[in-house]
Amino acid sequence: MHTGEKLLIKPQKIILCVLCVLCGKNAVMEIKPIKGVRLASAAAGIKYADRDDVVIMELAEGSTTAAVFTQNAFCAAPVTVARQHLAAANPRYLVINSGNANAGTGEPGMRAAQETCKTLGAATFCPLNQILPFSTGVIGQLLPSEKISAVVPELINSLDEAGWQRAADAIMTTDTVPKVISRSADVDGNTVTVTGMAKGSGMIRPDMATMLAYVATDAVVDQALLQRCLNEAVQPSFNSITVDGDTSTNDACVLVATGQGELQVKDELDAAFSVVKELVTEVCMQLARMIVLDGEGATKLIEIKVEHAASLQEAREVAFTIAHSPLVKTAMFASDPNWGRILAAVGRAGITDLDIDRVSIFLGDVCIVENGGMASSYTEEAGQAVMNENEISVRTVLNRGNQSTTVLTCDLSYDYVKINAEYRT
Amino acid sequence: MHTGEKLLIKPQKIILCVLCVLCGKNAVMEIKPIKGVRLASAAAGIKYADRDDVVIMELAEGSTTAAVFTQNAFCAAPVTVARQHLAAANPRYLVINSGNANAGTGEPGMRAAQETCKTLGAATFCPLNQILPFSTGVIGQLLPSEKISAVVPELINSLDEAGWQRAADAIMTTDTVPKVISRSADVDGNTVTVTGMAKGSGMIRPDMATMLAYVATDAVVDQALLQRCLNEAVQPSFNSITVDGDTSTNDACVLVATGQGELQVKDELDAAFSVVKELVTEVCMQLARMIVLDGEGATKLIEIKVEHAASLQEAREVAFTIAHSPLVKTAMFASDPNWGRILAAVGRAGITDLDIDRVSIFLGDVCIVENGGMASSYTEEAGQAVMNENEISVRTVLNRGNQSTTVLTCDLSYDYVKINAEYRT
Repeated sequence: MHTGEKLLIKPQKIILCVLCVLCGKNAVMEIKPIKGVRLASAAAGIKYADRDDVVIMELAEGSTTAAVFTQNAFCAAPVTVARQHLAAANPRYLVINSGNANAGTGEPGMRAAQETCKTLGAATFCPLNQILPFSTGVIGQLLPSEKISAVVPELINSLDEAGWQRAADAIMTTDTVPKVISRSADVDGNTVTVTGMAKGSGMIRPDMATMLAYVATDAVVDQALLQRCLNEAVQPSFNSITVDGDTSTNDACVLVATGQGELQVKDELDAAFSVVKELVTEVCMQLARMIVLDGEGATKLIEIKVEHAASLQEAREVAFTIAHSPLVKTAMFASDPNWGRILAAVGRAGITDLDIDRVSIFLGDVCIVENGGMASSYTEEAGQAVMNENEISVRTVLNRGNQSTTVLTCDLSYDYVKINAEYRT
Repeated sequence: MHTGEKLLIKPQKIILCVLCVLCGKNAVMEIKPIKGVRLASAAAGIKYADRDDVVIMELAEGSTTAAVFTQNAFCAAPVTVARQHLAAANPRYLVINSGNANAGTGEPGMRAAQETCKTLGAATFCPLNQILPFSTGVIGQLLPSEKISAVVPELINSLDEAGWQRAADAIMTTDTVPKVISRSADVDGNTVTVTGMAKGSGMIRPDMATMLAYVATDAVVDQALLQRCLNEAVQPSFNSITVDGDTSTNDACVLVATGQGELQVKDELDAAFSVVKELVTEVCMQLARMIVLDGEGATKLIEIKVEHAASLQEAREVAFTIAHSPLVKTAMFASDPNWGRILAAVGRAGITDLDIDRVSIFLGDVCIVENGGMASSYTEEAGQAVMNENEISVRTVLNRGNQSTTVLTCDLSYDYVKINAEYRT
């Protein structure tokens, strides 16, 4: 059903080869524009020199928009403003800057976010509350909104349906590769396309959504259905990844339906709804995977499955406990089959009545733990062979019920420390 | 009240200077023997060459013993055996090895732990269940109990009340300094002494106790009172520290009262009980602090206070969320006053109805956050001055109630990654 999975990504680092292998797709994928969405980017000099750092997305009249935001209590000023505006009106513009998160900035930060919307509104004859602001970058520094205002005319003049790739470049911070992908399908001869972009590399443990993702479709979908579609799509994607366990203050994921394509979604029982939801979920899953692959300092992708748990919450707690363990992550970095660290993480995940004799743990296809200890069939050679790969699967079978989950994470390397020790310098 | 706080520690790394400053005591402290406790160590060659790696502690007849063990579901074989033996009889010997945790080793691991007890029992004419085994080191490799058995005669021949320092050396794994301390006090002319040793540097987020600590007093204390004393002492000490959030499979803390000194504790209302409890708590606090100071790769000690929380659990969740944040820990390593990361950690700590306008956060004495954003009085210079110190205090005032807590942790450096990437090589 999926077509056109060609991704235009610069070969910026070796991990891209992994990405291609993982996707099982061609290295080059075509990014399909979404009728009714135009994008532009410009260099405002907020933090970075010589690169674009502001993006606007124009949504055609009649578009519906759904969004999910961070659950961090210290949410950023633009998150607060975007929530208010979204509740009041149908958005026509999104304005996104990188280099400054406008978080922890109190009242002056709220004014800066509103000022950005005001300038864009005045230039486009659009009411203030039809504009949603987003920011990503350093926390705790006031956003220089005048720098964004200065490039608004340039942005409006360069709006383009083909602007996704440039926009994906412009919203990057510590990311080393842009993250953008398209998927499309046919339903009874009607084509529907979904294109999405995201940024994120560190401070990644999304809670409702990740650090800025924008997904659009040309299908006709009303707002309530669109929100439901997004809520379901973020669960197995952005809400199932972690780089360092740190939930950002600025997480946001926006889904737009322009209604300018051929496919119309009538209600949730409509087959078209399933198709749109599947495409949106697939795009979110791929973007989430790209974020983990580009995790700060990452050299390996680690897929953590927990199976036969008594509840989904229990499965997620075990999976995230493994995913956040610095000892597991450094062993992965070293390609060391130190499976005792995985066992120790499962044991401390807080399941009070866990019967360890019923737990099995697998590294790839190799059983490492059974009957409360090392599997009798385990050999260091077999474990080492799995650890030498760039993509490693850790599967824990609890044998307590029928709930399962999958979480993606990456290893913990010298470069993670380097990137985060030097971030503001 | 405290006397004789002289600590004999080799000047092995620069962090020792911090330790001395922190203790506010002299660099050299005398380790006082405890009448009724004799120790010996020997080199069995379990993992390390040319160093002692097995310790026995002999407890005089009539001693009472209390212990707390790890809550990790995958607890090690020696933890299971020690729990069983402790429930059945009054211990006369503890046998401790480093280099191998005997965890995740199933039935063969249980037999190895029992074999160790059996050999020592046969040589000392002591019933099997009066011997408690302890192990620390690599998880998932079978303990070579025959190597321990081979040095039992040598160990028995070298038992010595003055053996604490050598024993503290022998139980080290990735520790860079031994951890041993004494405290004593006078009650109505009766002297009471408490001496303790501990090991631990990584896989440190104790849950009931830390990775092997042994504390002894010469006071007369019955077993129930002694257990109560220990339960209270571990809360503000071992249960309030973290290096990497990874609770070990082998955590154990043992408190022995030989009853061979002058002080007798009659009941919990006895002033003598308060004194013993205070001394034991003080020894545990100092040992816990030494563990964090010697945290793998640590260059800074971070004291995290959370005040005016609605509950103790809430205070601990906020404190541990900050303490486990890789972004906060790398900023500390870089001496970067990136206070936004602290704010983000507080915001994601899971307090659903947190009113951020009432939260204040302090870096040392410098207010960094108030009224939901950066404090108006904050300057980067003031923040930088605090971050340049080797000991950094982070204080979060929630203004929701009257519960407070303090957690100690360390920074996340290149060396943490190096130590844990290379641990088994």
